[in-house]
Amino acid sequence: MTRPMRVLGIDPGLTRMGMGVVEGSVGRPLTLVDVNVLRTSSQLPVAERLVSIEIGIDAWLDEHRPDAVAVERVFARSDSSTIMGTAQASAIALVCAARRGLPVALHTPSEVKAAVSGNGRADKAQVGAMVTRILRLDAPPKPADAADALALAITHIWRGGAQSRLDAAVAAARSRA
Amino acid sequence: MTRPMRVLGIDPGLTRMGMGVVEGSVGRPLTLVDVNVLRTSSQLPVAERLVSIEIGIDAWLDEHRPDAVAVERVFARSDSSTIMGTAQASAIALVCAARRGLPVALHTPSEVKAAVSGNGRADKAQVGAMVTRILRLDAPPKPADAADALALAITHIWRGGAQSRLDAAVAAARSRA
Repeated sequence: MTRPMRVLGIDPGLTRMGMGVVEGSVGRPLTLVDVNVLRTSSQLPVAERLVSIEIGIDAWLDEHRPDAVAVERVFARSDSSTIMGTAQASAIALVCAARRGLPVALHTPSEVKAAVSGNGRADKAQVGAMVTRILRLDAPPKPADAADALALAITHIWRGGAQSRLDAAVAAARSRA
Repeated sequence: MTRPMRVLGIDPGLTRMGMGVVEGSVGRPLTLVDVNVLRTSSQLPVAERLVSIEIGIDAWLDEHRPDAVAVERVFARSDSSTIMGTAQASAIALVCAARRGLPVALHTPSEVKAAVSGNGRADKAQVGAMVTRILRLDAPPKPADAADALALAITHIWRGGAQSRLDAAVAAARSRA
């Protein structure tokens, strides 16, 4: 069994930034530690919105002391008007974690959907339902950004766990060689 | 005549970040204070590259103490593979300036080209030539990211100056009313 870890999942966005902290290890029930959505007003200049986001993430890193941070990987898509803001918000999440020396992982939306629901094309309702079940909640976290942040943290623990087991197996095989 | 100001112009990029400091005021010769290109290796994780950029910008803000920061406005374009990195790098520039309370302005590439060359569609060579002439340099700054950063700072002083004169005229008109 892998050592329990605490992960902060971040679903980046300039208007709504989902943040969810989950604790646990592979093969054991996971626990919701905290979940929140950070909002910034579109009336404010982008630079000020980014400073608000930085303050919010730093406060959560101080409060929850995660072992790792998992951020949704953002792709350039011409069909999205919010993609630049999402990329900018993700940069703040990455830099807040990395300057503390925390491990940072990027997971794509399909990796997250596949990890929590077994289907890389699951819709928001399915992801919300699986997060509810995995964390034994009474109702799906709202808004969707909150559920997505928790799904990122769950994905990271499960993928990290698999990687840890692989590392352990390799180390064991080497020690026998 | 407007009060002289010192402006840090930033041409954001994950691989090459142009930074140029220019001092002066509208209607007077402008002075080059310093120019540099911050580079980060594509071999490193994005989070670490963003931390390097943050350290580099903070060091320049400490050293040069600009009155304002001018950053190139980034647009989503489906034809660019580097656009996400550019957006992320720009977020770090914005947050470094804004959390110190420095005024931050965004200028589009065509605003910059129009300001320094009179032509919003000027090419890189024309912008480099005009920056060389305006700052009375011996040769165009290289690479283009350095010239673009200086062009942003020049644009900001000239546009800021026009705005200041407008503000002064409005204030004067009000005081006579």
